[in-house]
Amino acid sequence: MEAASHPAVHPVAVPPHYQGAGPPPVRMKDLAGSPGTLGGLVLRFAQLGFALASLCIMVSIVGFSSVTAFCFLVAAMVFQCIWSLCLGVLDFYALLTKRSLRNSLLVSLFVVGDWVTSTMTFAGACAAAGITVLIDNDLNQCGPNHCNRFEAATAMAFMSWFTTTISFFLSFWLLATCR
Amino acid sequence: MEAASHPAVHPVAVPPHYQGAGPPPVRMKDLAGSPGTLGGLVLRFAQLGFALASLCIMVSIVGFSSVTAFCFLVAAMVFQCIWSLCLGVLDFYALLTKRSLRNSLLVSLFVVGDWVTSTMTFAGACAAAGITVLIDNDLNQCGPNHCNRFEAATAMAFMSWFTTTISFFLSFWLLATCR
Repeated sequence: MEAASHPAVHPVAVPPHYQGAGPPPVRMKDLAGSPGTLGGLVLRFAQLGFALASLCIMVSIVGFSSVTAFCFLVAAMVFQCIWSLCLGVLDFYALLTKRSLRNSLLVSLFVVGDWVTSTMTFAGACAAAGITVLIDNDLNQCGPNHCNRFEAATAMAFMSWFTTTISFFLSFWLLATCR
Repeated sequence: MEAASHPAVHPVAVPPHYQGAGPPPVRMKDLAGSPGTLGGLVLRFAQLGFALASLCIMVSIVGFSSVTAFCFLVAAMVFQCIWSLCLGVLDFYALLTKRSLRNSLLVSLFVVGDWVTSTMTFAGACAAAGITVLIDNDLNQCGPNHCNRFEAATAMAFMSWFTTTISFFLSFWLLATCR
């Protein structure tokens, strides 16, 4: 994590060494879990894992596609998987090559992407939760409708949303404090 | 809006005048729509109006309480109304007395409150949207189930969430940049 903040292999990403005289130039601080750190990588793979679990459980249920909300959840989970995988690979590359991902344009992209992804994931999870509670509590038709698996898929989607929200908050904080 | 950033009536909230010599002290910048500004007040009353409209439409539907998701939406709208009303009154008081609401503790409270409220409102709106789409598109039982009113209540809840999210982003940005 520390190493990632001092890129040394690629000269393009290396900030000029501070020579004294006057206040040091403002640059983004290290934040555990922010883009390009080991914490960030762990968060991305947690998001990917939860989204993939939710996706697999949902598509394993025969007839899930007859409910629009479940289709939306599947679409949101596919989107979440792609986003988290891309960002995870980027974090991994940044860690391997000791490059820094802390520039305003990249972090802005992470903030917007994380917000859109987490909002879609949360919307899908809430809609699926609403339908699951309707089938389970309100209509008491849980037997033939695989409630446990619906609940598991929804819970995994909520976990994926929660970890994406942490990434979003860290990126947004980094963006706001680095200007 | 400008006047609110230069509190003059109550000495406690007045920042010391800048006398030159050295960089000026860091203080929170004015952001249109942030707490204590006219934009902030307008946002609060928009949130309150949308949430109140959603609440009134939902409780006017006979039998809404048989669906858990609709009960959750009503609870979330009540919470949203209380929060937006309190913050709106606080903004109005700040504008009237020309006090500033820009201190870290207050803004942290606004950030946490706005995030919790907007998340609850969004969850309620998504769950209600899931059920409404199920009744309307998937089951085609719209006739006896007041679909138009369910849709209107959901749309108002989404509008309330959207305006609360704007307040949240502005407060969070203010908090991050003022430290």
